[in-house]
Amino acid sequence: MPNRRKLNIAMVGYGFMGRAHSNAFHQAGHFFDLPFELGLKVICGRNKEKLQQTATQWGWEQTATDWQSVVGRPDIDIVDICTPNSLHAPIAIAAACADKIVMCEKPLANSVEQAERMAEAARGVPTLVWFNYRRVPAVRLAHQLISEGRIGDVFHYRGFYLQSWGRSPNDPGAWRFHPEEAGSGASGDLLSHSLDLATWLNGPVRRLCSSVHTFYPGRKVDDAVILLAEFSNGSIATFEASRFATGNQNRNAFEVNGSQGSLAFNLEEMNHLQFSDFSDESALQGFRKILVTGLGHAYVDHVWPPGHVIGYEHTFIFTLVDFLNALSSGNRFHPDFSDALATQRLLEAVAESGSRRLWVDVDHAETTTKAGSQR
Amino acid sequence: MPNRRKLNIAMVGYGFMGRAHSNAFHQAGHFFDLPFELGLKVICGRNKEKLQQTATQWGWEQTATDWQSVVGRPDIDIVDICTPNSLHAPIAIAAACADKIVMCEKPLANSVEQAERMAEAARGVPTLVWFNYRRVPAVRLAHQLISEGRIGDVFHYRGFYLQSWGRSPNDPGAWRFHPEEAGSGASGDLLSHSLDLATWLNGPVRRLCSSVHTFYPGRKVDDAVILLAEFSNGSIATFEASRFATGNQNRNAFEVNGSQGSLAFNLEEMNHLQFSDFSDESALQGFRKILVTGLGHAYVDHVWPPGHVIGYEHTFIFTLVDFLNALSSGNRFHPDFSDALATQRLLEAVAESGSRRLWVDVDHAETTTKAGSQR
Amino acid sequence: MPNRRKLNIAMVGYGFMGRAHSNAFHQAGHFFDLPFELGLKVICGRNKEKLQQTATQWGWEQTATDWQSVVGRPDIDIVDICTPNSLHAPIAIAAACADKIVMCEKPLANSVEQAERMAEAARGVPTLVWFNYRRVPAVRLAHQLISEGRIGDVFHYRGFYLQSWGRSPNDPGAWRFHPEEAGSGASGDLLSHSLDLATWLNGPVRRLCSSVHTFYPGRKVDDAVILLAEFSNGSIATFEASRFATGNQNRNAFEVNGSQGSLAFNLEEMNHLQFSDFSDESALQGFRKILVTGLGHAYVDHVWPPGHVIGYEHTFIFTLVDFLNALSSGNRFHPDFSDALATQRLLEAVAESGSRRLWVDVDHAETTTKAGSQR
Amino acid sequence: MPNRRKLNIAMVGYGFMGRAHSNAFHQAGHFFDLPFELGLKVICGRNKEKLQQTATQWGWEQTATDWQSVVGRPDIDIVDICTPNSLHAPIAIAAACADKIVMCEKPLANSVEQAERMAEAARGVPTLVWFNYRRVPAVRLAHQLISEGRIGDVFHYRGFYLQSWGRSPNDPGAWRFHPEEAGSGASGDLLSHSLDLATWLNGPVRRLCSSVHTFYPGRKVDDAVILLAEFSNGSIATFEASRFATGNQNRNAFEVNGSQGSLAFNLEEMNHLQFSDFSDESALQGFRKILVTGLGHAYVDHVWPPGHVIGYEHTFIFTLVDFLNALSSGNRFHPDFSDALATQRLLEAVAESGSRRLWVDVDHAETTTKAGSQR
Repeated sequence: MPNRRKLNIAMVGYGFMGRAHSNAFHQAGHFFDLPFELGLKVICGRNKEKLQQTATQWGWEQTATDWQSVVGRPDIDIVDICTPNSLHAPIAIAAACADKIVMCEKPLANSVEQAERMAEAARGVPTLVWFNYRRVPAVRLAHQLISEGRIGDVFHYRGFYLQSWGRSPNDPGAWRFHPEEAGSGASGDLLSHSLDLATWLNGPVRRLCSSVHTFYPGRKVDDAVILLAEFSNGSIATFEASRFATGNQNRNAFEVNGSQGSLAFNLEEMNHLQFSDFSDESALQGFRKILVTGLGHAYVDHVWPPGHVIGYEHTFIFTLVDFLNALSSGNRFHPDFSDALATQRLLEAVAESGSRRLWVDVDHAETTTKAGSQR
Repeated sequence: MPNRRKLNIAMVGYGFMGRAHSNAFHQAGHFFDLPFELGLKVICGRNKEKLQQTATQWGWEQTATDWQSVVGRPDIDIVDICTPNSLHAPIAIAAACADKIVMCEKPLANSVEQAERMAEAARGVPTLVWFNYRRVPAVRLAHQLISEGRIGDVFHYRGFYLQSWGRSPNDPGAWRFHPEEAGSGASGDLLSHSLDLATWLNGPVRRLCSSVHTFYPGRKVDDAVILLAEFSNGSIATFEASRFATGNQNRNAFEVNGSQGSLAFNLEEMNHLQFSDFSDESALQGFRKILVTGLGHAYVDHVWPPGHVIGYEHTFIFTLVDFLNALSSGNRFHPDFSDALATQRLLEAVAESGSRRLWVDVDHAETTTKAGSQR
Repeated sequence: MPNRRKLNIAMVGYGFMGRAHSNAFHQAGHFFDLPFELGLKVICGRNKEKLQQTATQWGWEQTATDWQSVVGRPDIDIVDICTPNSLHAPIAIAAACADKIVMCEKPLANSVEQAERMAEAARGVPTLVWFNYRRVPAVRLAHQLISEGRIGDVFHYRGFYLQSWGRSPNDPGAWRFHPEEAGSGASGDLLSHSLDLATWLNGPVRRLCSSVHTFYPGRKVDDAVILLAEFSNGSIATFEASRFATGNQNRNAFEVNGSQGSLAFNLEEMNHLQFSDFSDESALQGFRKILVTGLGHAYVDHVWPPGHVIGYEHTFIFTLVDFLNALSSGNRFHPDFSDALATQRLLEAVAESGSRRLWVDVDHAETTTKAGSQR
Repeated sequence: MPNRRKLNIAMVGYGFMGRAHSNAFHQAGHFFDLPFELGLKVICGRNKEKLQQTATQWGWEQTATDWQSVVGRPDIDIVDICTPNSLHAPIAIAAACADKIVMCEKPLANSVEQAERMAEAARGVPTLVWFNYRRVPAVRLAHQLISEGRIGDVFHYRGFYLQSWGRSPNDPGAWRFHPEEAGSGASGDLLSHSLDLATWLNGPVRRLCSSVHTFYPGRKVDDAVILLAEFSNGSIATFEASRFATGNQNRNAFEVNGSQGSLAFNLEEMNHLQFSDFSDESALQGFRKILVTGLGHAYVDHVWPPGHVIGYEHTFIFTLVDFLNALSSGNRFHPDFSDALATQRLLEAVAESGSRRLWVDVDHAETTTKAGSQR
């Protein structure tokens, strides 16, 4: 691969996601032939000491405490944002205006208004939003089976994102509990993933009704949200996202029941997909537990031989690889800012429904772009 | 056990439930020392041939095609109703007026109005409603753990009753598809079980919002219902009941997440209860899969030695045994007509919420009796 | 079914198995149209009080404390033996000599010598040995799939029968710990089941090597046995039977790996069969968890509608029904005394291999009858 | 971490293991503070083109087609061997003689004789053998629980390593099917892992009896091996290693039943450990499914936050980190050549038992070093 163009990256943020992204930037080329060379140029953050530590550990060439000075630098090609949510908009807009490729953690923004401005600003640049779970090989297999019509018409969709850690006290330094920084709690953090997956797998939501709760006394963001939804394809759904679903660590799960088959997935067992195929003889039907690590499974054929499971971090690697390939071939990558804006509209509908205690229609027109590319 | 009083039973209906009840009447005394002797006196139904066949197979002494002639007979002590739902009210009221013990299949009625009249008529007689899943030993263990405070304050409850058979055509003889006879579809048939369990385990529902669907073209009863609910104890819940949840045969399941532990159950694996106990060392926490067949488990200590699983029919046996013991000792049995009336109110709230597409408050006062006896 | 011939039963023994058999005699006719009427005529045992209690609870007409006086009675058609193992031979031989139908609990005897005499004496009468697990619907489905060639040539068979209760002290009244009465411990009690299933599913064993252990100090029977085996079909196998496999309650399990598919079963989840079908697309292969309760599944179509699980006791009912149907149609029933004799030879080979610490060839000729009828 | 000593690595081999090791060398420092800096200096192999490709993809500075010219180079500190097994001995001995740190893939050698010479030669240098599964966090937790006495005295151990790919034809280029290169088939490849884990978790084996099989016509190495074993601690065991256990992809599994608890693990679900604790109330006992990704779990606290699963490759990273820390602190690392020699002796005993069809005693004296460091 001689003469590959090098893309220099500036990453803003250095927390959990900063590490996951750094890992992806490092590892993608070890498993895949990339159309570009990646340069880990500069990492930005406010805490100088921690920043330097992350830079050293992950091999970033430079550090900077001021993102404004970085996002427009001519030697930077990609700006990757993994700050608290409230900074997504200003950084992304600045980077897009400087004509950079923009990658951004989810949720895209803290409001539809912000997200719209971001999508508008980024209209001319390639974008990526890190809804990484679309690239779990088992989820990808689910999408493929749905696209091929293997489960037929969908009757039911149920999505969960269940965690337990909400019971820990409100660490004042924990931005995820601060509404100004996080925008929301379980909604933006967890439900956004479930909705992104659901609309990717099952198409657009037509209307929804939610209930939003904060269990922890005095907390300013939501701990849990539950909702009913109706999809454009006629299927009905329930969703739950919670930081108080004790006993569950990271159960980002879904089940889809169709006329020809059913599918089930759980991130805690991310190397498996469950599939019940109604074209099997009826006396032999049941959920098959497919170990998605092998031949005929997307992505993982590049990692280890069949039977060797992968971990969480590979979802970022696969997302990045798909993005770079799309970039190289001139195709639009999904999910981009426009897709994530549609999810942001859903999140706003959820919040509105929760606070008004009413069913809310989701504006079709605005999500058409996304829906059109669904299936 | 000499000189036990004999209770003669008249059973109206001879279908699936008729067989399950007949089995219970036969088998209860084989596993438990009963305070009464049971006489399978007369079985009533409209189809003479099938009726005779059932009578012969299950050892009923007499048959009758006219329930009116039977329910008031002086030699009858118990009237057990397992007809299509629309007949519950007239039979139960006639039996209660004749001062009989009345047992009735669920849902209690096709409307709150009917259910109220039934409860009113039965005020002076012992009653039983066959919400048999309260007596699954694993569910009983769940109730015990909740009552002992072992899972602490509840944050989340999720209940499912998922079946697949709704795709079969509308057999004109299948009363379950006829609104006049069945009252409703998945709601009365399946959701009623989930709501009975949920209120028994988690207390009264404060408000709810539902969506009710019929997938099958031209069908007059609901195929599926999904809902959000808030309980008086502050927990939030989702429920789904469906005959179109393909891939699932009989998944009457729940999960409860509390501050001290979590519980999960699935009727398809009815001999197991899953329990995550947060008083375990944190590095060793996880859902335990408890095989509920042994010492220290209710009911099953009377059946086979530990490790030998029981089947569906035992839930009817255990319900009957508890009823007879309550009768003998003068205690009120649960769930009785009054409890089932409260569930009927919930079903009506579900239907109302679904048709008006609004959150509906559940009248507290009216369910107090039940709630008071919850925990 | 008018004019069915009535078969009167004398049952010797009234413990756990006495209850399981009584239940089967009672219940078979409730679920199946039987070719014979069954009379629960007389129950025999030494403890008069307990005997009377069992007789009353299960509806036996008479009791007797002396089996010798019963087995030859002209009004008795079937002698059913569920005594401690040491009594199997004398009772069975006496009954066979009196030309009775003989049913006997497993293992058939305490030695091959006894078993041979029993088989010889019973040559002219119909016999049944209660290796009831052949009639678990899921096991029956496994046998059907194997017989149809659905898993192809077998490479591996692994059989377990794992229990935990061996740690309880040697209750002096517990005949299962007395070598004179029980003959052996885990071998006869548990391994016999595994070997019966294995030879039924996978054909005759050619040679084996075992290790037999007693963990409990001073105990005279084996607590655990493990073995290697080679089958005539070229497959290789491991077996474990233990009363010290703590954490397991009643894990009578097997897994079979063939060239076209694999099967797995566990009695603790007896309503499920796992099947991996290699004719599925390779990217979609995995063990399917089949809920064996429905249409197209043997036996259970007579019990409850699909999705309603059955319990342990039904395996006795199904065994009995198959026996009565074979009797009525003049067919040989399996497993009979001859089949159980072959299993007894295997048990003796296991004991011999264990004590001599050598591989032992299993005499083919002697098991041919059985093997011939395998598949 | 200024002034860390740099260790330059020469890796011989570039296949599956070459990639797994390269990944570990790269990634260890991203998750852990290492006491040494690692230099990926030179990669050796025979196929120049493939070698260059691997070098480029994984960032090795140099390539060499002649390992002899490399292992003694003064700028090399570590020689890491992931060639076909037959080359382990010559390379390791040459490297050890040149005073290098030696890392070697498992099995250590193709014979005890080779392994002894290797251990002898390496007596003065730090060594590591890549029995990587000791460092699965769930396996590590199992070891900790056993060491703490949490499962008490062990009665039963069962170990499996079950794969399916043996049915693929004998690719002439596939060294794993060539006895000259591979030494053995399933034994060295799979059983070695099971035995390493078993002796680490359960102590030394006292005697064993095996059966070794080749299913594939004309194949020169074993496809499957099954064995019985007795351990010095009085427990008994079965082991199976197979490339013909169809339906299983990579089921490196064990279950241990002790007097105080039981443990179960399966590599296909490597982020979970199952633990049944008999100090739980008896009515609440059952296998807990512990998601080993979080606080209080070894290694993974350095990777991602609790609930985010890791994949196969991390076992190499954790092995390397433990080795480097031991090296830095002057402690002996396990498993080293001496430990792997003991496993080699077991493999030879397995082969001998299989070919002579006899029980074989394992020489205690020779494995004492290892046993002494067990628990």
